[in-house]
Amino acid sequence: MKHMRHQRVLITSLEPSVDAGRWPVRRLIGESVEVTAGVIADGHDLLAAELTVRHPNGKRSVSRLKLRWNDEYAGVFACTVLGRYAYKVRAWVDRFATWQDEFRRRVEHGASENEVRVALLSGAALVREAAAKARRNKRLTYFAKAMESGLVSKALHSQLSTLMRNNDARIGSVESDWQHVDVDPPRAGFAAWYEFFPRSTASAPNVHGTLDDAAERLERIGALGFDVVYLPPVHPIGTTARKGKNNSPTASGDDPGSPWAIGSAEGGHTSVHPSLGGMDAFDRFVRRATELGLQVALDIAFQCSPDHPYVAAHPTWFKQRADGSIRYAENPPKKYEDVYPLDFGCADYVALWMELKRVFEFWIDRGIKIFRVDNPHTKPFAFWEWCLGALRKKDPSLIFLAEAFTRPKTMYTLAKLGFNNSYTYFTWRNTKEELRSYVEELAHTRVAEFFRPNFWPNTPDILHAYLVNGGRTAHITRFILAATLSPTYGVYGPPFEHVYNKQHAEREEYADNEKYEVRTWNWEDDTSLQPLFGKINHIRRAHPALQQLRSVCFFEVHNQHILGYAKSRGNSRIVCFVTLDPFHEQAGDTVLPLDFLGLDPVMPIKVDDLLGEGSFMWHGAHQHIHLNPHIMPAAIYSVGNP
Amino acid sequence: MKHMRHQRVLITSLEPSVDAGRWPVRRLIGESVEVTAGVIADGHDLLAAELTVRHPNGKRSVSRLKLRWNDEYAGVFACTVLGRYAYKVRAWVDRFATWQDEFRRRVEHGASENEVRVALLSGAALVREAAAKARRNKRLTYFAKAMESGLVSKALHSQLSTLMRNNDARIGSVESDWQHVDVDPPRAGFAAWYEFFPRSTASAPNVHGTLDDAAERLERIGALGFDVVYLPPVHPIGTTARKGKNNSPTASGDDPGSPWAIGSAEGGHTSVHPSLGGMDAFDRFVRRATELGLQVALDIAFQCSPDHPYVAAHPTWFKQRADGSIRYAENPPKKYEDVYPLDFGCADYVALWMELKRVFEFWIDRGIKIFRVDNPHTKPFAFWEWCLGALRKKDPSLIFLAEAFTRPKTMYTLAKLGFNNSYTYFTWRNTKEELRSYVEELAHTRVAEFFRPNFWPNTPDILHAYLVNGGRTAHITRFILAATLSPTYGVYGPPFEHVYNKQHAEREEYADNEKYEVRTWNWEDDTSLQPLFGKINHIRRAHPALQQLRSVCFFEVHNQHILGYAKSRGNSRIVCFVTLDPFHEQAGDTVLPLDFLGLDPVMPIKVDDLLGEGSFMWHGAHQHIHLNPHIMPAAIYSVGNP
Repeated sequence: MKHMRHQRVLITSLEPSVDAGRWPVRRLIGESVEVTAGVIADGHDLLAAELTVRHPNGKRSVSRLKLRWNDEYAGVFACTVLGRYAYKVRAWVDRFATWQDEFRRRVEHGASENEVRVALLSGAALVREAAAKARRNKRLTYFAKAMESGLVSKALHSQLSTLMRNNDARIGSVESDWQHVDVDPPRAGFAAWYEFFPRSTASAPNVHGTLDDAAERLERIGALGFDVVYLPPVHPIGTTARKGKNNSPTASGDDPGSPWAIGSAEGGHTSVHPSLGGMDAFDRFVRRATELGLQVALDIAFQCSPDHPYVAAHPTWFKQRADGSIRYAENPPKKYEDVYPLDFGCADYVALWMELKRVFEFWIDRGIKIFRVDNPHTKPFAFWEWCLGALRKKDPSLIFLAEAFTRPKTMYTLAKLGFNNSYTYFTWRNTKEELRSYVEELAHTRVAEFFRPNFWPNTPDILHAYLVNGGRTAHITRFILAATLSPTYGVYGPPFEHVYNKQHAEREEYADNEKYEVRTWNWEDDTSLQPLFGKINHIRRAHPALQQLRSVCFFEVHNQHILGYAKSRGNSRIVCFVTLDPFHEQAGDTVLPLDFLGLDPVMPIKVDDLLGEGSFMWHGAHQHIHLNPHIMPAAIYSVGNP
Repeated sequence: MKHMRHQRVLITSLEPSVDAGRWPVRRLIGESVEVTAGVIADGHDLLAAELTVRHPNGKRSVSRLKLRWNDEYAGVFACTVLGRYAYKVRAWVDRFATWQDEFRRRVEHGASENEVRVALLSGAALVREAAAKARRNKRLTYFAKAMESGLVSKALHSQLSTLMRNNDARIGSVESDWQHVDVDPPRAGFAAWYEFFPRSTASAPNVHGTLDDAAERLERIGALGFDVVYLPPVHPIGTTARKGKNNSPTASGDDPGSPWAIGSAEGGHTSVHPSLGGMDAFDRFVRRATELGLQVALDIAFQCSPDHPYVAAHPTWFKQRADGSIRYAENPPKKYEDVYPLDFGCADYVALWMELKRVFEFWIDRGIKIFRVDNPHTKPFAFWEWCLGALRKKDPSLIFLAEAFTRPKTMYTLAKLGFNNSYTYFTWRNTKEELRSYVEELAHTRVAEFFRPNFWPNTPDILHAYLVNGGRTAHITRFILAATLSPTYGVYGPPFEHVYNKQHAEREEYADNEKYEVRTWNWEDDTSLQPLFGKINHIRRAHPALQQLRSVCFFEVHNQHILGYAKSRGNSRIVCFVTLDPFHEQAGDTVLPLDFLGLDPVMPIKVDDLLGEGSFMWHGAHQHIHLNPHIMPAAIYSVGNP
């Protein structure tokens, strides 16, 4: 029972926090962390609570939390630099403030002279106790003497309050565990990604493009308002068991193979395919992107073709069958003979893990800060926590996008491990209720503390039936949904902008897939969706409300096909209506969330039609919406009281 | 990085759990604990998860969890004895089951002879590895040999599966922390409490009743269907600064004083007031209650009158002012001169805490198992955790009701500390939305894991304006709400049943309060609410649906005054409608929750009117409800498909 008498304070809750502090909370640079702690003690004594913040540079700052209501204490700190912050909360009974508060009430309600005198002596005893330990004890002793001689005003003096606060012995104080906060660069939270295959960028048809050809496409991509260009793997491609067109098990002579069958005699994960122009062309590509304000995202796929240099140099890094042969990827009866998975649990794993970390470091040294990581859920969690942690410790500006299309617990766990961008289920959320409930889960639950979604309407692996059936209109709808619901989104551009939507006969992916062949695209096509890309990206950049996720607010539209949502940030207020029916005109009554938007219901509302480019007025929250998908399946309005 | 290669499994969630295992979950004896754990690993390997339960007697039982969906593994254990259970979950990659599963698919899809042979060798290697460590290794070796010689059927043999399961080395297994479960007696979860002052039980008017007089009231209380009789403190009452009638600061000669001003020359917390008949009368009272199947709840109020023996024997147990005088309870400008609070943080606190624990033990030894603890929130949390923990360890059948009317975080924390019954905000929740949202918080959120509400429409300290304004009808309404919404409820009987609702001029409590004077009541009054008490308690006992909290389901009634709710348990199905308007007839359309009730919407529904005592039929979910508060402000229906 030692010291139990001093255990009076409990911290009953602490936010923000992920799994009681096991994983970091995520924030963007420039954002703040609003800390709230539930703090209670027995009785009615006044409590003190303090926030300690450890900054990425190791320095500490300390501030008092303020009581809000119902025993909830709040404070805030700004995330001004990249890296890992930590915070903790300490709380204790503030004995002198409690005494002073009681004493004030006593005096104000006309206590007897004797009562006041006796109470002053109690207070003075606390002051003397502090003086005995404090450095500035002369001043404290002065106050104690004044109180002992009956001077009420001295007992309530604000200087004494401050002195006692600063010299509080904090008997029985309790402290929370450290909670961590990882602060990411702005593009982790607001970015438009454009994916394309460099080998499909040559000007002449059916010619294998190089990264120099690809660099010529960057000006257009930049002009369309994208921030990140993401390239599938650029490494040499294996020839053993190379896949032909449409994933055919046999390749013909000029089939280029899948970029994800990484490695050949010409090199592995730190080499560039000679047909793409080699490392020099890569460096020129990155330089050009940087000039244009674009960031390059590389694909990291930790797997090897049978021709990868690792296979000969480190056969123990791969799983071997009982007959000594190396095991290719398979999920019986499916076989992927062109890919050897790495055995992260092999006896020599330390060397393997170090080498894989070196692959990241190699590209970081060449100026790459963004990585799209292929199938991270098939590699051990411990590897990612270790590897991403080590990389980010050296460079906290890194962005890792987890390409894990798997079950929810694993998706969310990868985000906790260090992936600060994640692919999502957006591609498969197509109805009003699906979209609403999914976005609310991402934006308005605990998930928002650690998981940063990146919405993609398509990828080389996924062509959803909605795009196949709905054609051009469905493409417009899905692009606008991705770009306005999520601040971070991406598009696998070339087929999407040309509404190429021929589906593979057996799989939910493109026919004549660029994964297995060189394609030719029209890169300057005003009849394509390129102008829409440019317009939407321009709107996103002009309106801060669209640059964040948490601010979304869905509201009622009396039509099952029309999704209505608003976003608000300061004076930036956006209202979107999107019809999910690509074929028929749809209309419905709606009630605008004027409270959420901070709009006066009595004043007229000026509405700027950002897609139609006109302006008009709304009066009141009750409006009628009409959308003709053959003209434009969505409306994006900037609204405000004039 | 040591052993990091084996760290593949993560337990991402574990339920039920209170604050990540810091506090116990609560269950009643006879209930079950359904454990669900989120368990994931990289890749597609099969996982195994195991539940270990430590029973109150120290024995352990182990069982496998079953995969439900989305990586959620579930298991269950029954709470068959009182006391503290604990459980934990362990999980690992099941290497052999994974191999066997892949092998089965391989064989089923016509793998080549060589593929099968090589795969069999891999499987045999796992079997040999197990055989090297296992006791029953002969059988394992037999299977390994069979596989090595190419026998497919042996590799898939269920005996081999079992053997390998039992001899799994569980490489890289992970384990959760222990989670605790406190299992309480039935009356902690289902009980009707009746509170009265024994001194007001004499047959002649204005005579100080004894516990023998009180014992004569027990037969009636039992006949009305109550389970617990709760007595305010029965100890000697101080004379110094004794309060007079209506909390007057001066008592006249025959004023009995407040029972909460505990202690006089005649004894303290382990004595019985001589005017109540002393300890012998107390024992007779308890004996009579026990004969009638009633349990006696005592009031434990850890505070002292200035005349309490502790004051002289242990002056250091009290806070002293600077002038050496003992500090009475006060919250300036309010003063409670008849009460000295104990100083739980005094230097001699170990002796004080031991003595207070002894107070409980004294009454436990006299047969008391239920304690209503006065103002526990003004005593240190550490004291309660220690004291209730120690008492419950010796006797897990104890029930402690926390009389804390304070802010939510403290109310909930007291429950976590060991109070397995709690007063609530029910008294102040009078509108439809207030009642619904409060009961849903208690029944359908995490709160239900640790907090057991005890609903009281009134107490000697609280007479709500709703009862004052609404008269007899309001009393009926509030009684029915308490008794049907919460399985555990209580009533401060005598004034309530006689609809005595004269409010104190300044406070939300009774005028001529029994706390300060002896009152005379008519104990056998058929025109009072006594028959209603009996009828409702009878309904509660006859219908298991009303004996639990979590089962409540609110549903729509299109009238802001009518609350509709249902409860369901097996074949017991109850539907309640209560009008909150004591003055006017109210009616409204409703949609019954037939799904929740497990009723067939096509079949007719037989309705037994438990208050009106007739029967009728409903057809379909859409019904119209009409309530005349002058006849009966509520309807309680037992429903079922005939």
